[in-house]
Amino acid sequence: MREFFSPDSIAVVGASSDLNKIGGMILRNIIGSGFGGRIYPINIKGGTIQGLKAYASIDLLDELPELAVMALPSELVLGEMEKLGRIGVKAVIVITAGFKEESSQGRDLENRLNNISKMYGMRVIGPNCFGLMNVHRRLNSTFSSLFPPSGGISLSSQSGAVGSTMLDWAIHTNNGISKFISLGNKMDVDEADVIEYLGDDEDTSVIGIYSEGITDGRRFIEAVSRSKKPIVMLKSGRSAAGSMAASSHTGALSGSDSVYEAVFDRLNIIRVKDIEELFDALSVISSSRPMLKDGIAVITNAGGLGVMAADACSDHPAVRMSQLSPATEKRVRKTIPTVASTHNPVDVRGDATNDMITGALKIIADDENIGGAAVLSSPLDSIDLNSIAVAVSEMKKKLNIPVTVAFAGGKTCESALSILRENRVPSYPSPDRAVRALSFLRRVQTGYTKKEDTILPETSGRWRVIELLDIAKKEFRSSLSEDEGKSILSAYGIPVPKEALAVSPYDAVTAAESIGYPVVMKIMSPDIHHKTDIGGVIVNVKTADDVREAFESLMVRCRTAVPDAKIDGVSVQKMVSGQEVILSMIRDDQFGPVLAFGLGGIYVEIFGEIARTLIPMSDDDLDRMIMSTKAYRMLSGARGKPPADIDSLKDIMRRMMKIALENPEIYELEINPIMVGKKNEGSWAVDALTTIR
Amino acid sequence: MREFFSPDSIAVVGASSDLNKIGGMILRNIIGSGFGGRIYPINIKGGTIQGLKAYASIDLLDELPELAVMALPSELVLGEMEKLGRIGVKAVIVITAGFKEESSQGRDLENRLNNISKMYGMRVIGPNCFGLMNVHRRLNSTFSSLFPPSGGISLSSQSGAVGSTMLDWAIHTNNGISKFISLGNKMDVDEADVIEYLGDDEDTSVIGIYSEGITDGRRFIEAVSRSKKPIVMLKSGRSAAGSMAASSHTGALSGSDSVYEAVFDRLNIIRVKDIEELFDALSVISSSRPMLKDGIAVITNAGGLGVMAADACSDHPAVRMSQLSPATEKRVRKTIPTVASTHNPVDVRGDATNDMITGALKIIADDENIGGAAVLSSPLDSIDLNSIAVAVSEMKKKLNIPVTVAFAGGKTCESALSILRENRVPSYPSPDRAVRALSFLRRVQTGYTKKEDTILPETSGRWRVIELLDIAKKEFRSSLSEDEGKSILSAYGIPVPKEALAVSPYDAVTAAESIGYPVVMKIMSPDIHHKTDIGGVIVNVKTADDVREAFESLMVRCRTAVPDAKIDGVSVQKMVSGQEVILSMIRDDQFGPVLAFGLGGIYVEIFGEIARTLIPMSDDDLDRMIMSTKAYRMLSGARGKPPADIDSLKDIMRRMMKIALENPEIYELEINPIMVGKKNEGSWAVDALTTIR
Repeated sequence: MREFFSPDSIAVVGASSDLNKIGGMILRNIIGSGFGGRIYPINIKGGTIQGLKAYASIDLLDELPELAVMALPSELVLGEMEKLGRIGVKAVIVITAGFKEESSQGRDLENRLNNISKMYGMRVIGPNCFGLMNVHRRLNSTFSSLFPPSGGISLSSQSGAVGSTMLDWAIHTNNGISKFISLGNKMDVDEADVIEYLGDDEDTSVIGIYSEGITDGRRFIEAVSRSKKPIVMLKSGRSAAGSMAASSHTGALSGSDSVYEAVFDRLNIIRVKDIEELFDALSVISSSRPMLKDGIAVITNAGGLGVMAADACSDHPAVRMSQLSPATEKRVRKTIPTVASTHNPVDVRGDATNDMITGALKIIADDENIGGAAVLSSPLDSIDLNSIAVAVSEMKKKLNIPVTVAFAGGKTCESALSILRENRVPSYPSPDRAVRALSFLRRVQTGYTKKEDTILPETSGRWRVIELLDIAKKEFRSSLSEDEGKSILSAYGIPVPKEALAVSPYDAVTAAESIGYPVVMKIMSPDIHHKTDIGGVIVNVKTADDVREAFESLMVRCRTAVPDAKIDGVSVQKMVSGQEVILSMIRDDQFGPVLAFGLGGIYVEIFGEIARTLIPMSDDDLDRMIMSTKAYRMLSGARGKPPADIDSLKDIMRRMMKIALENPEIYELEINPIMVGKKNEGSWAVDALTTIR
Repeated sequence: MREFFSPDSIAVVGASSDLNKIGGMILRNIIGSGFGGRIYPINIKGGTIQGLKAYASIDLLDELPELAVMALPSELVLGEMEKLGRIGVKAVIVITAGFKEESSQGRDLENRLNNISKMYGMRVIGPNCFGLMNVHRRLNSTFSSLFPPSGGISLSSQSGAVGSTMLDWAIHTNNGISKFISLGNKMDVDEADVIEYLGDDEDTSVIGIYSEGITDGRRFIEAVSRSKKPIVMLKSGRSAAGSMAASSHTGALSGSDSVYEAVFDRLNIIRVKDIEELFDALSVISSSRPMLKDGIAVITNAGGLGVMAADACSDHPAVRMSQLSPATEKRVRKTIPTVASTHNPVDVRGDATNDMITGALKIIADDENIGGAAVLSSPLDSIDLNSIAVAVSEMKKKLNIPVTVAFAGGKTCESALSILRENRVPSYPSPDRAVRALSFLRRVQTGYTKKEDTILPETSGRWRVIELLDIAKKEFRSSLSEDEGKSILSAYGIPVPKEALAVSPYDAVTAAESIGYPVVMKIMSPDIHHKTDIGGVIVNVKTADDVREAFESLMVRCRTAVPDAKIDGVSVQKMVSGQEVILSMIRDDQFGPVLAFGLGGIYVEIFGEIARTLIPMSDDDLDRMIMSTKAYRMLSGARGKPPADIDSLKDIMRRMMKIALENPEIYELEINPIMVGKKNEGSWAVDALTTIR
């Protein structure tokens, strides 16, 4: 990756004198940005291009260029790529569009391009991309003339247009940029590569990424885990509709958004929903001291803005309005005799001077409850916003806590805001955004530490799975029966209630007597998936007579609902009781196995609250997953309920993880419900649904 | 109110030549804004002030001024007010601060001011306010020089500083203003008065309000119900912390925020959370055609922005991405041969010309699935944003659907955005805000129609309440016992299970035999509020032996938990079954009686989902309230559950409304739980908690 960002020499393949052509713009930008290395325009016509000697072919150069930027019609790309490979160029940016994003022929072309680059061991950015920038090295190899100021923010964008928007935004808001990279089709270099490189780059303090979908989730996770820099991510395709647009755009297969949420949450990636929010986060992170406590203080010359800031705290739970200590309040009152309220938010009134405002800020920064501060001002005629901007900019340098500013207004605030921007004081037009900015800072602080994976029990369950997969394969099945699923659970040491299959009422009674009353009876049929919908489950059957009666009515119900159903019989099962929860394992295309957990039965449908997290996970992750759910509140003993056996549930979860990791052939395995008994009484898997592939 | 906004003559009491004094600024602004009526500066020194003849006292004027603006030190306000009253001035704006917002002496002063104004039948705005503007009449009686362009937006702000922010914002975004009013302490004129006036004002197309709390909720509701103009409201104090700041700010007693939510929802007031969102809503509403369908189309020259717009649709449920008809798609392809995707969002690529974009816009506007459109552009070098801005501005005038624009960028977009602003095309820096703007428009369209209140049953329950209140009063109680509560319910025709109080095990058996098994037994004690917490309820008691045993163990549990509890006995109650729901009535200080409904028992605590709505309500409101809850999904027959008797539940709700309306002495009445039986089997109130005042 070094060659991409800091090459000593660049060849522009398809360079042009025509500044309306991409190849012309790129050459112009490389020259114009002030790049210090050697530049080689390649154009079949040779001659001089934009004042530089041009070469008719790449193999006429005296040296091997470290980086090649290709801006040729798509039909010429393959041939040139081959040439670059032959002479030994290792880093190529393919700007050209017309590949997989366009058509199936384009997809073929891209596959062939990929083969060539792999053969020669080249790294490729693109195709269908916008180029990259290294602002510190004064390198602009994009075809955009938007060259931002230099600083600590590095940016990556899948979409060229969104990338261009980011650059424009950075310039407008005076956010200093370190590296910028447009990934395009991500044939080779993707977000994981970028994070791997930038996460260790000393010129980068924070990484901002626009992505429409991660292709190799596990590599992405690895890269993020190792990154030393915080990551802010705008991942679009949140909605079903959005995902559709994403796949028609650059052909990305967007993973299910809830899995992304789980990944971002695990890795402490800050997720934002638009470009405005992206820069709100990047600017505060790149320009502020760390926020070591979650308490914030607000200083305002307008009470109303203070109220809004307090509201904002309830929207952004990473921060909270802290009470100031009595000593702090006293000192504030001394500094600002006319203060309207020394309680946080501190209302200094419209007539407070700059010195009073910065004086109060200084005092508050010393308060041990306070980790960050926001200064809010409204555009009253009596207030000189510019001088507040200057004073706060000065004070910011001296403070030991981060500070954000909201000048809530329009026209009047413009020059004051530009003073703040020049001084890289994070500033916003509304109290809400100033508070949100502090919450981003706080969230960065909590960081991400890779923890030891939870220890999974040793079992010999894998052998049972292999047996069952063999049988299923012979029968061309893509799913296992409930019985088979439960036998896997058993083999992995997950408790399953005693059970027997009965094919007659007599059978059923014999089974029940041996299992012990009360029992649950269920119709068993490969053609009936949701048994309860047709009344196919009868619970709490207590006597032999009742067993006989239940058997008959299950048969009747089943034949009425699905006349042609193949009926295997009736399962007679030990009735277990407890809190119903649901636990499932499913493989995400991008991120691999995911564990999902929530309240079971009717609650899943009505409350739809399911927590997801990646497998494997640490003990902490496991606890956090369980505790994030409403199910946990039920299990831990809500009013009048005895606490449930959460330890046995965790044991089942670990065994599910083991199943997921050992058996890649199992695509999905859902236990619904698990009955979690009272403390020390264990949990049981009552029903299992298994699909394979 | 007419005199406030369109006076023929204004007296400025406390006018000054000193432009640093409030009285100087106000006079300067009235003169400078171009007010056409007569202006009388009043100052004890007489002479000439700012070129006008000044009068030493208000009673020296030749005519009675229609409006007086008072900018005097607070100690002089009362005397001048008295004078104004005597000579017959009917409208006074008191700018002066130092009243109830400051101290208890200030509160006294304000009470006296109020008495004077009431005595003379004067209407008063303020005190502690910022003045008002009527832009169409070129009247600026505030002390701010921020005079916005004229248009259809009318604004009201409780806080002067927030009001000033609004004005600044309006100027910056070229949003045309009709009236502006700063309410301050709202001693007399409040939001209800403002809405009453503006809701019928032909120069106003939409009303924007900043408020920290409504004092007279019922008047507010009346005014909003009659308003012909849509209302967008920024009500701060959403959080507990926020409410605290609000009451220290202008002394407003913020009502519970969930009640505000219920009110805004009922009246179709669009609630926003900051000033940016306020203007996003006001600008689109004041400058757009109505949005008659909820389907939107997106035209973008950058696929990534289209994905973000699709995401935004899932955040703003009032709109949705509609599929374009095949005919529309075909026509779009014909207009833009190079289009990347004709599926919505339509991706016209970076090289599409303005004509292509506006051409596509025109075609899409004819699609019968589409109610509104958003045009999105990124700042690529190949794109001329200014000319897109001009073209879309022109096209907007011809379209029969509303259109919003997002130019997602910074520096490069500035001049294009100002072209759009000049043409009052609602424009935003991000796709999300452009889509949200359309959703505001759509929400306005659904409107508010006052419907007939639901018909409440006739009962003679009031007499029973009066009896019980008499008893409680004699015993100095502020709450009623469970028994008393239930007897009120019974008296109002709400079914209560048969029940008897037993003081011995023998008693309990007798009661159970007469009621019929199974029964529920509960400890009855005025000292124990949450019975289940101490195991004070035993359900499903089925035999005489079990009744005896249950009685004994209830006694033991009660004595263990609360040794000194006064025990009245054990209630033996017919056991009823069904879905547990909770229903309560509570009086909000601002808005009066509110009905709250949700799932009962353990669910209230864990899921905390309670719907609230004001009493009285229409049949529609009642249905909407029930259907908005998860409880409804439980009741209407989620998987495997029989549908419940929702009609009987509604009947109970109507009877609760009757109780609320007939018995102002009852502060709170909660039935927890109501057992809703199966369809046609009725519902029962099982427990009641009643507080009075």
